Amino acid sequence: MTETNRQIVLADLPHGKLAPEHFRLTRSPRPTPGEGEVLLRTRYVSLDAANRAWMQGATYRAALKAGDVMAGGSLAEVVESRFPGLASGDLVFADTGWQEWAALPGRHVTKQPNIEPLPHLLSVYGVAGLTAYHGLLECGRPKAGETVVVSAAAGAVGSLVGQIARIMGCRTVGVAGGAAKCELLTRELGFDAAVDYKAGDTRRALRAACPDGIDVYFDNVGGDVLEACLFNMKLHGRIACCGAVSQYDGEAPAHGPRGVPGLIVTKRLVMTGFIVMDFAEKNEKALADLAGWVNSGQLVVREDIIEGLENLPGALVGLLAGENVGKRMVKVV
Amino acid sequence: MTETNRQIVLADLPHGKLAPEHFRLTRSPRPTPGEGEVLLRTRYVSLDAANRAWMQGATYRAALKAGDVMAGGSLAEVVESRFPGLASGDLVFADTGWQEWAALPGRHVTKQPNIEPLPHLLSVYGVAGLTAYHGLLECGRPKAGETVVVSAAAGAVGSLVGQIARIMGCRTVGVAGGAAKCELLTRELGFDAAVDYKAGDTRRALRAACPDGIDVYFDNVGGDVLEACLFNMKLHGRIACCGAVSQYDGEAPAHGPRGVPGLIVTKRLVMTGFIVMDFAEKNEKALADLAGWVNSGQLVVREDIIEGLENLPGALVGLLAGENVGKRMVKVV
Repeated sequence: MTETNRQIVLADLPHGKLAPEHFRLTRSPRPTPGEGEVLLRTRYVSLDAANRAWMQGATYRAALKAGDVMAGGSLAEVVESRFPGLASGDLVFADTGWQEWAALPGRHVTKQPNIEPLPHLLSVYGVAGLTAYHGLLECGRPKAGETVVVSAAAGAVGSLVGQIARIMGCRTVGVAGGAAKCELLTRELGFDAAVDYKAGDTRRALRAACPDGIDVYFDNVGGDVLEACLFNMKLHGRIACCGAVSQYDGEAPAHGPRGVPGLIVTKRLVMTGFIVMDFAEKNEKALADLAGWVNSGQLVVREDIIEGLENLPGALVGLLAGENVGKRMVKVV
Repeated sequence: MTETNRQIVLADLPHGKLAPEHFRLTRSPRPTPGEGEVLLRTRYVSLDAANRAWMQGATYRAALKAGDVMAGGSLAEVVESRFPGLASGDLVFADTGWQEWAALPGRHVTKQPNIEPLPHLLSVYGVAGLTAYHGLLECGRPKAGETVVVSAAAGAVGSLVGQIARIMGCRTVGVAGGAAKCELLTRELGFDAAVDYKAGDTRRALRAACPDGIDVYFDNVGGDVLEACLFNMKLHGRIACCGAVSQYDGEAPAHGPRGVPGLIVTKRLVMTGFIVMDFAEKNEKALADLAGWVNSGQLVVREDIIEGLENLPGALVGLLAGENVGKRMVKVV
């Protein structure tokens, strides 16, 4: 067993766009777990747009500082346990950060079942799947026959939101960047229509794709796409606010979309912000539903797996540029 | 009975700020009611910030055009009825517009009780009172002990929102323009604190007035005050979106506040737009509650009554500049 711990440190906080140069690979001794802790070996690191938002300031977690080991959630294996209820060989989801080894309090990690393929624990059965499920159903509250629009629709969360909405009997429209992603949405993921936001006039394209208006918009991006959707919402429409990736890779957020709050008033919209943890008590039902749909073939799971701890910085920069389809993760070991 | 009908016409749509010069006084023959119509004599015209929004484009009603008799709701008296269920002498609330006489379909007007003082039918027992009551209780959902902030707090709706929140056991903070209004809020209307948005740094002043953060924000103004509140909201806070008066008196709305949607996500806020008509089925209970509070002296009703049809343009321009306290209306006859 290796005695060193390769770590990727956030060397400098970015001003403007994040680049691989903001990170540095370092080595430290493998940590030793204290009382109540477990020693974890990182297997797969989850890459999420929120990783970048953590560099902008406090969110639902404290802001990252220069010199910190880069934060991130991982699927990890327990190698040594000083915490009752976890044993060597157990799989857990943990906030290991971008490093090969981590010693963490056992009460801060979440035991995972040993399933195949393992990466599904970071995609459809992980934060991405639960975010899509709870955000759509609890905040979007779609009814059969309604029109559901989701942005970043080829991404980890969006690709599942559109499919779950279709399973609920909705008409589904995905917003994504580029013709290739749009084709993927309608050809492989079962979306009824796709809108390429890079092709110009998103507001008009959405109006054409949603001639009766939008009942539910699942917002992963904020900014101009949110604005375009606001103008196309139906009366009493619902907007599930999941993230604002268009605003993360730069300085402090820009002004919000035009039409806030005027359109919220005149169309009587509800915008609801959520974090997946808010619905933890409903995870059991969510995971059972998701597994049922995966096993019956109704839900297609796309994953984008890159090998090697050293490739994490490039993988995150690429994710922010929209190069992934489905859930991106890095296999460490 | 006079045979002419003095009318105020919106002569030109404003570009930029509304001024009395955008209106013109005209005379036309008194209309004759057709089958199913009632002839109405306008008694009190309600002045509302929304009057200005109707000039910007379609809202919950079609946009106004140059040459239209200016739209507006009134308390009016039925003078002649060709509609079963309404008789001469009945009081109604109707969309008469700014004119002395109107013939309207009987099914488009709402019969009012004959109470004293009559202007209460346009303030606490009218759209203002019902908007405050339903918007606060249905969209804001305040709980005793919570902190409720309302903007345009010395206005028709805001002055009631703060008092109803206090009756519900909440701590109440009003945002208004100028020291005189702020003093009125705390001295006469029972607010716990007031913030003068014209005194600079509203975000900091709100933080001082709401050290534990804001649970419910009732938004009448949008723009910078909404932004200041967004940054001071507590987790799982609620924003009742009633109007955006800061955005009405100019061209198309500006960009929305910073922090939309980022803060909505990280603080898990709910922003809900509403129009008072959405809750019409609960008006009976609302009016009974409001009357109880007025009669017991718990609810102070402020009204600002100007005499003379010809003073309507100036009354609206002044309302948009914030010169009124409480519900502004014009007594026509």
